[in-house]
Amino acid sequence: MPRHFGAVPGVVPGMAFVNRQELRDAGVHLPTQAGISGSASEGADSIVLSGGYEDDRDEGDVILYTGEGGRDPLTGHQVKPQQLVRGNLALAISHRDGLPLRVTRGHRHSSQFSPQSGYQYAGLYRVDDHWREVGRSGFLIWRFRLTRLENQDAHHAGADPQHPDSQHPERRPTLVQRIVRDTATARAVKALYDHRCQVCGERLETPAGAYAEAAHIRPLGAPHHGPDVAGNILCLCPNHHVLFDFGAFSVGDDLRLLGLPGRLHVHPQHAVDREHLAYHRRHYALQAGLEWGCSVPLT
Amino acid sequence: MPRHFGAVPGVVPGMAFVNRQELRDAGVHLPTQAGISGSASEGADSIVLSGGYEDDRDEGDVILYTGEGGRDPLTGHQVKPQQLVRGNLALAISHRDGLPLRVTRGHRHSSQFSPQSGYQYAGLYRVDDHWREVGRSGFLIWRFRLTRLENQDAHHAGADPQHPDSQHPERRPTLVQRIVRDTATARAVKALYDHRCQVCGERLETPAGAYAEAAHIRPLGAPHHGPDVAGNILCLCPNHHVLFDFGAFSVGDDLRLLGLPGRLHVHPQHAVDREHLAYHRRHYALQAGLEWGCSVPLT
Repeated sequence: MPRHFGAVPGVVPGMAFVNRQELRDAGVHLPTQAGISGSASEGADSIVLSGGYEDDRDEGDVILYTGEGGRDPLTGHQVKPQQLVRGNLALAISHRDGLPLRVTRGHRHSSQFSPQSGYQYAGLYRVDDHWREVGRSGFLIWRFRLTRLENQDAHHAGADPQHPDSQHPERRPTLVQRIVRDTATARAVKALYDHRCQVCGERLETPAGAYAEAAHIRPLGAPHHGPDVAGNILCLCPNHHVLFDFGAFSVGDDLRLLGLPGRLHVHPQHAVDREHLAYHRRHYALQAGLEWGCSVPLT
Repeated sequence: MPRHFGAVPGVVPGMAFVNRQELRDAGVHLPTQAGISGSASEGADSIVLSGGYEDDRDEGDVILYTGEGGRDPLTGHQVKPQQLVRGNLALAISHRDGLPLRVTRGHRHSSQFSPQSGYQYAGLYRVDDHWREVGRSGFLIWRFRLTRLENQDAHHAGADPQHPDSQHPERRPTLVQRIVRDTATARAVKALYDHRCQVCGERLETPAGAYAEAAHIRPLGAPHHGPDVAGNILCLCPNHHVLFDFGAFSVGDDLRLLGLPGRLHVHPQHAVDREHLAYHRRHYALQAGLEWGCSVPLT
């Protein structure tokens, strides 16, 4: 049976479950132990927040979720780095593919949204970012930012059992594949490069003019709080923007590319902030290994 | 003075204006005649819906807006094709760059959202698609789909006059540059090509696995209502996805690329629907001129 992504017919946000077996029987979360339900080929379909991770943060509609692995099974302490494998890789694939993720909170998860006892289904979220950082333990952990999908009241969730996909975001008529929202600063950076990619020099020509994307080196918004200033923005083609956001390459302080051959092309009037480059190396770069990130102080 | 994009401090959605001069004085819409305020270099910052276009459609949060040009100034009838220049090009640039657009309705605009008299500011929208089609007149027109931005109640709009950008979408902490939401069908198409672009063969390698995008040939949702089936999906790299969505190239019935050299690579198990290709040529393709679109019957 293929893995089921999205809402379970009849299960509405707020619904309570006594234990993990009930969650399994309802089809919400099949593993009775693991917090992440998913596979490295299909992506993750569900998680249960059980309070095991010291670095989790839960603001209701936005959840910072810590990946799995590297913990001592007896003490629960992080004793080695987490890797981008199994459940963590599954969540990364859900990010890449924009898959909906069922989220359930357990009573041991410490947040104002947690139930007093048992488990409570919270609804569908999407994974809209993932990166690595050093957790309180001193070991690398993987973080996933989950954002709650809109329009999932009880009415929607149970409305159409014939079409369990009916509340998936891709079914909404206003689906937008690509939302690029530029500030004046972002536009200025792109103009400086005449919409040429700082990595490959590509300039996409469209009937609406040249197209490039403003890539924030240290991402905007919580938890990164990167500033929307020129020193934190690169002008990239969409391909290199994806590769950069996913950590397939990064940039050294000397502007050499890490993970790709070559150097970042930088205009004399564009002061790329080395601290933000270091932030990106620490949190997103993967392929060249730990030496990219951990030889510099952590902030 | 640079063109002002976004909310005008003190002007909240629902606010009424007696005439175009008042709209100008308030800084909402500077031209007193033209429906589109913008330039072909900066983008469009504001439009006024005045009911001049027979093909406009207004559903409140989603507006199908017709571009300007080609009308007889005396009769108001469309007498020649519209071109992607001036205000139309400005709106296309707002689409490309994700700029916020102020929208005002006049009393002659026929919709249930129009004021009884004068003008009423409707709020900020984004241009999330643009394409061409043959209007009721038989001449080509440009269409723009405008979607109302969220979170602009009166409180937000007037809350922070020191930061007129404070309600722009890019200021919201949950800014997401790229939202890709795949259905199972989209994932299957991408798997069929092993995430290689059907145009260039590129396969983007990321730590989360290969990355490609599912491009709908005939777009999903109103007003296109393209189906989410394999025959309507191409597996493209982000660069070619942007170029395709913006009509920089299209695909002929013989799978030859139009606007780019070469042919679309198609897997034997992938039946690309020729009707959807024709729809894309008609509505999005531009560079090769009208012969792409108008030699086939219109639907």
